[in-house]
Amino acid sequence: MRIDCCSPIRRTVAVCVCVLCLSLGLTVSCFGLPGRSVAGAQDSVTESQAVMLMRQTLDAQVEAWNRGDIPGFMQGYVRDETLRFSSGGTTQRGWQAALDRYLKTYPNRDQMGQLKFSDLEFLPLSDQYAEVFGKYHLSRSREIGDATGLFTLLMQKEGKRWLVLHDHTSSAK
Amino acid sequence: MRIDCCSPIRRTVAVCVCVLCLSLGLTVSCFGLPGRSVAGAQDSVTESQAVMLMRQTLDAQVEAWNRGDIPGFMQGYVRDETLRFSSGGTTQRGWQAALDRYLKTYPNRDQMGQLKFSDLEFLPLSDQYAEVFGKYHLSRSREIGDATGLFTLLMQKEGKRWLVLHDHTSSAK
Repeated sequence: MRIDCCSPIRRTVAVCVCVLCLSLGLTVSCFGLPGRSVAGAQDSVTESQAVMLMRQTLDAQVEAWNRGDIPGFMQGYVRDETLRFSSGGTTQRGWQAALDRYLKTYPNRDQMGQLKFSDLEFLPLSDQYAEVFGKYHLSRSREIGDATGLFTLLMQKEGKRWLVLHDHTSSAK
Repeated sequence: MRIDCCSPIRRTVAVCVCVLCLSLGLTVSCFGLPGRSVAGAQDSVTESQAVMLMRQTLDAQVEAWNRGDIPGFMQGYVRDETLRFSSGGTTQRGWQAALDRYLKTYPNRDQMGQLKFSDLEFLPLSDQYAEVFGKYHLSRSREIGDATGLFTLLMQKEGKRWLVLHDHTSSAK
């Protein structure tokens, strides 16, 4: 027995398979791969890229700080009212309020000192969010004294950049 | 002109539409709805449920604390080595270390006082993670004094419960 390759049944099956494959591909490309359970290697690459981009933001912040450029440092934060900066029991809402606090707390280069981040832990949480935890250290003159402490950041992806949306900084006692 | 409803062409088109709809539905149900951009009402319901479950965890913690039950309070934390608890410039790793710190810092009911959380802000980040920010207040005797401060939690879904994976707590100065 020979089935004609152009028979209606075979044609219907072939078209169905094509539509199924195309629609699955289309859906995955539209919806993304949201979880580790369905991802794998691709997720690892995406996470590595995200961590690299987050490091770029933090490195740029440190460079700006260490040349005495607080507005430059602030470029690492989300520039709107959703920014939340918490330190010493108080919270600033919005980019401008956070900038104003930094300018008030660190009025000159001596107060700013030299900033260093260490022990950074990056945890990508989704395509849009990641948590960063780490230590900061300000090297300053003996008169002023060094400052050190911890920070937890929630970073948010904006275009190709990762910016700090929430910052909880606490000084060591 | 009349097209036969059982013609191969119409049958093929009808089957294609069915396969397309079924495969799209199957894909969405398998992959979930990862982002706000493609979700909407369903996401809001899921987020509301997540927030309700997170509140349950935090409420249970407060109840345990206020009956002097620190191990009960600790049930709100992820019970393994991934737990990170940071406060006062130091970090404990693992559930047991965090419990030990609480038992040492709050050796009796007078030190524990009465706990209250306020100004809670819940931000679901994915199906598995959410950020919670808020204030704590410990009402204690005049001799010991009240304690107050801020906390940022990263909560993780474990089965039907939401538990604290990372806790950054800082006291007000």
